Amino acid sequence: MNIKLQTLKMRLAEVVDLQRSSALLSWEQQTYMPPGGAKARAEQLATLQGLAHRLFITDEIGGLIKELSNSSGQWDYDTDEASLIRFVAREYERESKIPTELVAELASTTALAQEAWASARQNDDYSEFQPHLQKVIELSRQRAECFAPYDHLYDPLLDKYEPDMKTSEVQKMFSGMKDELIDLVDAIKSRADVVNNEILYGDFDIDRQREFGLCIAKKLGYDLNRGRQDETLHPFCTHFSIDDVRITTRFDSRFLPSALFGTMHEVGHALYEQGISPELARTGMDTGVSLGVHESQSRLWENLVGRSRPFWLHFFPQLQTVFPDQLGQVTHDEFYRAINRSEPSLIRVEADEVTYNLHIIIRFELELDLLSGDLHLNDLPAAWTEKYKDYLGIVPHNDSDGVLQDIHWSIGAIGYFATYTIGNLLSVQLFDCAQKEITDLESDISKGNFDGLLYWLRENIHCHGSKFTAGELVKRVTGDSMDSRPYLNYLHNKYSNIYSL
Amino acid sequence: MNIKLQTLKMRLAEVVDLQRSSALLSWEQQTYMPPGGAKARAEQLATLQGLAHRLFITDEIGGLIKELSNSSGQWDYDTDEASLIRFVAREYERESKIPTELVAELASTTALAQEAWASARQNDDYSEFQPHLQKVIELSRQRAECFAPYDHLYDPLLDKYEPDMKTSEVQKMFSGMKDELIDLVDAIKSRADVVNNEILYGDFDIDRQREFGLCIAKKLGYDLNRGRQDETLHPFCTHFSIDDVRITTRFDSRFLPSALFGTMHEVGHALYEQGISPELARTGMDTGVSLGVHESQSRLWENLVGRSRPFWLHFFPQLQTVFPDQLGQVTHDEFYRAINRSEPSLIRVEADEVTYNLHIIIRFELELDLLSGDLHLNDLPAAWTEKYKDYLGIVPHNDSDGVLQDIHWSIGAIGYFATYTIGNLLSVQLFDCAQKEITDLESDISKGNFDGLLYWLRENIHCHGSKFTAGELVKRVTGDSMDSRPYLNYLHNKYSNIYSL
Repeated sequence: MNIKLQTLKMRLAEVVDLQRSSALLSWEQQTYMPPGGAKARAEQLATLQGLAHRLFITDEIGGLIKELSNSSGQWDYDTDEASLIRFVAREYERESKIPTELVAELASTTALAQEAWASARQNDDYSEFQPHLQKVIELSRQRAECFAPYDHLYDPLLDKYEPDMKTSEVQKMFSGMKDELIDLVDAIKSRADVVNNEILYGDFDIDRQREFGLCIAKKLGYDLNRGRQDETLHPFCTHFSIDDVRITTRFDSRFLPSALFGTMHEVGHALYEQGISPELARTGMDTGVSLGVHESQSRLWENLVGRSRPFWLHFFPQLQTVFPDQLGQVTHDEFYRAINRSEPSLIRVEADEVTYNLHIIIRFELELDLLSGDLHLNDLPAAWTEKYKDYLGIVPHNDSDGVLQDIHWSIGAIGYFATYTIGNLLSVQLFDCAQKEITDLESDISKGNFDGLLYWLRENIHCHGSKFTAGELVKRVTGDSMDSRPYLNYLHNKYSNIYSL
Repeated sequence: MNIKLQTLKMRLAEVVDLQRSSALLSWEQQTYMPPGGAKARAEQLATLQGLAHRLFITDEIGGLIKELSNSSGQWDYDTDEASLIRFVAREYERESKIPTELVAELASTTALAQEAWASARQNDDYSEFQPHLQKVIELSRQRAECFAPYDHLYDPLLDKYEPDMKTSEVQKMFSGMKDELIDLVDAIKSRADVVNNEILYGDFDIDRQREFGLCIAKKLGYDLNRGRQDETLHPFCTHFSIDDVRITTRFDSRFLPSALFGTMHEVGHALYEQGISPELARTGMDTGVSLGVHESQSRLWENLVGRSRPFWLHFFPQLQTVFPDQLGQVTHDEFYRAINRSEPSLIRVEADEVTYNLHIIIRFELELDLLSGDLHLNDLPAAWTEKYKDYLGIVPHNDSDGVLQDIHWSIGAIGYFATYTIGNLLSVQLFDCAQKEITDLESDISKGNFDGLLYWLRENIHCHGSKFTAGELVKRVTGDSMDSRPYLNYLHNKYSNIYSL
């Protein structure tokens, strides 16, 4: 083996180990850490992330990348070797622009901001969180400024989650979708009484919810020997290696879909991470390529599989035996329509497929205004309310259901939200392909057999990890670039059918 | 503030953060990690511990220590500053003798050995663990050899847990105690029918055990805002900062004392860590000074408080209401005698105070023989059996209750066991002092009031962390050096009374 490549991989392994250890500390902060531990944990996260950064942007690694890039012609473009050199060169180019001190300060600031957010959300007190958010935004701005010149100050933040995507592209895409979505929401509103979802509200024992959710998770292919489920305030998926991929869930005893679809969503993320080629372990390419592609996987399983008619042909009878009092008398069709009821609501993670992207557009627009300074933090709750009124016709009655509902800003994830919509668009483009290429996919799903679909996703997407850019990957699989048309068509077809539009 | 000292503290903080992060990864491996995660976890532990070592033994830190040591006369001996310089100089002297590669290899080897041990113990299959133990011993030997010349190959291993203690001292102490202990065991054997502990066996609901254990833990002073309890195969206490000190417990529904005294034991450790002065945070001195002194705290609370008559005057009525069917008809005196029943048994952590140290002496002798090569690993189970027959008159019927019962060897903790007996001896010396200095201590304990005792321990022991050596600390508190006589006197008094010897 090439000695320079081997050295590079050894150095990267150390950096990746630090990043994954940091991810574990963060997961543990959200699951089991006692409150008193927050301060020291913030310091430890700053140390781990700072060190990971410092040990990555060394002259040695820079030199290795340069030499390997010059001689990379010896490897075919698709090989792990050529991909690694391209991947690391891009990462190095980006990371070496940021001072390590800023990385460390972001880590400790967000660890504390996250605690403040959780407390503020519980107490419904935005003012408790505001000074932390202030600092997060200030540091994010500093981070972005390291990348000057840029077309837009937001570009470098977006790039962290969706490499190569530009703010202007997102703006164009969102403005193209917004009116069409608002029209569809209005059309559905006028037929609101056609679908009723009262059956999903009630008293659903949480242990039974958990057991049923895990049963589905295993059926979809989530390997619990290499994963586990815990409870957190905000559900997420994280991973400490290809062989240790965790999901978390939030249970609500009064509303069944919350944990049910939340679990399928996080399992979608987890299947991606568990399906990455072991050859890529500890290179940094051993993770999903971008948040948009990641979200395409979670949404594919949550919505295109999990909210489909065929899926519940198999699982609804089982769910009825778990909750006979609540669902025993409900038909498959009633259940299908109930879980797909579309109605403007306040909570993003529980929004239906039609309204969901409006929640994203709101957040994206607010982030741009906060970052530019056009919007002051004192005015954020009012601006939030204003946009919800404009786009969805409803307003939150408190900050917990408003600006405090998402964890993202507290963890410094500014530039993140847009990737949810990117994921939605890609999920349909990818699923369309899968349907073309897999014989009897719908029939398999109706029998509770997901082997074919998972195999197809593994071969075409998962196994590659971050070997190709998101754009390259989408092109390889679909032959096309990202496009909102298939998603909008999917929504029109599905909801015209459900609401007889 | 002295700029050199400040720089040193910054460097140490980074090293300590890595060590504490590593401790969290290890805790998580034993509590929640899915089995598939073991391989990557071992690599991550190797990286964190290797880095912590590499970043500690730098020329920069060496230089700072040298310069600060030269000018340390400006600080009084007892100050944090002078203590830090002495402490770090000793640590540096020791750690710089070991190659970082060996530190990393020990970390990954033991992370995997621990998994193998847990599996072997479950399957009662020593052969599954033997190759891992082989490697651990080999690496421990290599580690010891870094310290040549030494009086005994075992000295450097012991020194890691009990700095400044020599193998010859332990041998002398153990041989002085062994015959007297065996005689006491025999005397008690001849009066075995005087004490019956059948009431402690039965069906004790684990949730109730947990709740009662936590209730005692809080009463003793364990701050759950800065700690938590989880379940593991082998109970332990670990800490990620002064404000995050965890205990773990093993519950047995058929035998009440297991978790009850196990919890008090670990709480004793936890109180030590939680009581360290916040001024020492992130210096490396923010932890107990030696395992012997640590164990003196756990044993003090477990035995001198927890197995005393006055303690149960307060708690036994409460325990009776928790388990009315099992204990409703039992008297305080019957319960006190039952929990102090002495009888040779196979499991160290559940051994009574008289037989306990014989378990330690057996392990210590076996470790010496393994390390010297006099004992081959193939013959370890037979040697174990032989010693149990000689010293305690009983033999294990399987390896799970024999050589596989303790986690220590799997985590590379060779040289550790002796500190348990050191802790027993110190617990009595320290408690004797506390009794002299605290008015009405016994009366307070019988009222469930531990404030005075905890305050005394905090002031005299806990707050100092590792500012003084174990020897210095014992001298400061007791005016004496370590001595086995008070402990043996304590045993004779207590057990003569219980067994009317």
